[in-house]
Amino acid sequence: MIRDLSDDEARAALPLKWEASGVVPAWVAEMDYLQAEPVTEALVDAVRRGALGYPPHGDDLGAAFSGFAARHWGWEVPAAASVATGGVMSGIRLALEVLCPPGPVVVPMPCYPPFRDVVTVIGREIVPVHLDPDGDGRLDLAAVSRAFAAGARTLLLCNPHNPLGQVPSHGELAALAALAHEYDARVVSDEIHAPLVLSGATFTPYLSVDDRGILVTSPSKAFNMPATHGAQVVSLQPDDHARLATVPVPAQNTWSSLGVVAGIVAWRDCDEWLAALRQRLSAQRALLTDLLADRLPKARMRPLEATYLAWLDLRGYGVADPAAAALDHGVRVAPGHDYLAGLEGHVRINIATSPDRLERVVDGLARAVGG
Amino acid sequence: MIRDLSDDEARAALPLKWEASGVVPAWVAEMDYLQAEPVTEALVDAVRRGALGYPPHGDDLGAAFSGFAARHWGWEVPAAASVATGGVMSGIRLALEVLCPPGPVVVPMPCYPPFRDVVTVIGREIVPVHLDPDGDGRLDLAAVSRAFAAGARTLLLCNPHNPLGQVPSHGELAALAALAHEYDARVVSDEIHAPLVLSGATFTPYLSVDDRGILVTSPSKAFNMPATHGAQVVSLQPDDHARLATVPVPAQNTWSSLGVVAGIVAWRDCDEWLAALRQRLSAQRALLTDLLADRLPKARMRPLEATYLAWLDLRGYGVADPAAAALDHGVRVAPGHDYLAGLEGHVRINIATSPDRLERVVDGLARAVGG
Ligand SMILES: Cc1ncc(COP(=O)(O)O)c(C=O)c1O
Ligand SMILES: Cc1ncc(COP(=O)(O)O)c(C=O)c1O
Repeated sequence: MIRDLSDDEARAALPLKWEASGVVPAWVAEMDYLQAEPVTEALVDAVRRGALGYPPHGDDLGAAFSGFAARHWGWEVPAAASVATGGVMSGIRLALEVLCPPGPVVVPMPCYPPFRDVVTVIGREIVPVHLDPDGDGRLDLAAVSRAFAAGARTLLLCNPHNPLGQVPSHGELAALAALAHEYDARVVSDEIHAPLVLSGATFTPYLSVDDRGILVTSPSKAFNMPATHGAQVVSLQPDDHARLATVPVPAQNTWSSLGVVAGIVAWRDCDEWLAALRQRLSAQRALLTDLLADRLPKARMRPLEATYLAWLDLRGYGVADPAAAALDHGVRVAPGHDYLAGLEGHVRINIATSPDRLERVVDGLARAVGG
Repeated sequence: MIRDLSDDEARAALPLKWEASGVVPAWVAEMDYLQAEPVTEALVDAVRRGALGYPPHGDDLGAAFSGFAARHWGWEVPAAASVATGGVMSGIRLALEVLCPPGPVVVPMPCYPPFRDVVTVIGREIVPVHLDPDGDGRLDLAAVSRAFAAGARTLLLCNPHNPLGQVPSHGELAALAALAHEYDARVVSDEIHAPLVLSGATFTPYLSVDDRGILVTSPSKAFNMPATHGAQVVSLQPDDHARLATVPVPAQNTWSSLGVVAGIVAWRDCDEWLAALRQRLSAQRALLTDLLADRLPKARMRPLEATYLAWLDLRGYGVADPAAAALDHGVRVAPGHDYLAGLEGHVRINIATSPDRLERVVDGLARAVGG
């Protein structure tokens, strides 16, 4: 059911990821798999019908997301809670600018780099709160509490976490919600990786524990289709909807009709494909564990609970910048310090590829660090 | 060569424009025609190949635009002058925020409403300069000069002009460029309607008279495909490119791979379709002139030099808000006061439809104003 792209197909389809010829790419978060058939058919149909105009109003996208949330997470969210946007980062920017109190923004670190950028771009101060990438990766709630006590009123959560591949527990999120409640702070939760929670872990929608949380999500990551430009800001507060409705188009980073078409189908008609994808990713995760034991025995891998992005600690090999070294051996992985300065010696690797390519990635890394 | 969508097809393909059933829509700027065949085929191919990932680097889009500019306007612009963005308004926001000096922004009025919004959203003051919608619609250069003298250092031009359908002359633009040079001001020129200059008028790319101008354009309007999310900021100043390159992703309103695919083909392979479109629009313009003479003899229509948006002065009928009145007669046109408060009595009508529907639009308007 999961259709692998050949090297040539992947190079043509995913030119950013596959840019450097002769390099096996395991860096940017794209999968070397064809998107789900219902997405393909819906997009082809839309193009052939000339549905390339402005996006529709209406809440079909919200309804499709509600169905997905109920089936997958047992979470009931009204269709009308969703507001369409053009992307997750655009939606986060909109949420921060329009819905969140002024003042510093708490960002757990390491983080997906645009999290830092978006806070900087809107002219807010970042208060970093450290997640131990080599430990349990849990939120330091005492540090969050101190940040709120010192005046921050917004926290930017990544649930599940990229780059750590970790799924925050219900208890951890409930405790964060209690703190947010105490300080009347708002948590913006990026849940783009939620459909990619793998067997063994349980996902908690943040809004299910905090009805003042703001969810930003999109099917674009799990369904491998960032080009369609669709995402959603989801809020349970009618006030938020009223405020978003007053924002003029140029602030809204407008979404695309194709994003709406693809998003509806992804949330509604692709459960089987997604199940097959998760199986494939679980198999890749198992393969990676085996390959590491065999070829990189001093590597420590964080438990990969969600996403297709594995976090490796390669410091046991004493190579300053393993990602740079790997490039010389024909493999591109993401360097740890992209996510937080000081995390040299760590890498993030993208396992959403063929078993064969994953083996080449690990081999390249092993050669690079002398494993 | 131009394939009209039937009412049912248009309602399904263009749900925003056709939202209200029983209403002939002549408001938002979308055409009731299928996009060009090469665009359709390129998009279908991209979707089937799984090319739904992040957009490529590289300047194929810039090269395609250069070819178009040379063939259509005899303007030589380097391929490397183009920077891809997600839309024209996003590109204008980026240009204003990153490339233009601080201070007030001169906006000729009436204007496309997002022009006002974008200036407000970025926290700048608007200095309106009036274009006489009932006169020659030319820029009041004395007023621009006063605005620059008073401290403004940016002007937001619409070339050709929406909603007036007017094409600024070479001389007018050269005089504006001389003023910009005198004050070291920057002109941001939105040329999204440039491919839609109709027979009888001659288009001048603003950058051909001012090498410090900033062009923002997209094939999305002329080729009827806003959903593909592609546009370009074009600058002849290497400094501008360096500055744009440092802007982080969340400020860039990122473009889509599908926008790149569709944009390349539109600029490169669709000249025949565009020629047929312009012929059709010229025929619709002639039909509108006849229909007005016959059924709305007191209407005054501005010469429609470009765009498919005709500007009518209906004050001769003494109806306060003809657009509102038309809605009661099953026709939706855009009210003049959307473009500038005080322009009640004027309407903008979209002629990019079938002859039959255009006739229904004029009939509805005539019934509404008692013509
Ligand atoms: C946590 C997270 N948020 C957002 C994004 C990007 O979303 P978008 O392209 O919709 O802005 C990514 C992409 O990998 C991501 O990992
Ligand atoms: C003058 C002008 N600029 C920009 C746009 C919209 O461009 P975009 O959707 O790429 O922001 C339009 C749409 O009609 C327009 O008329």
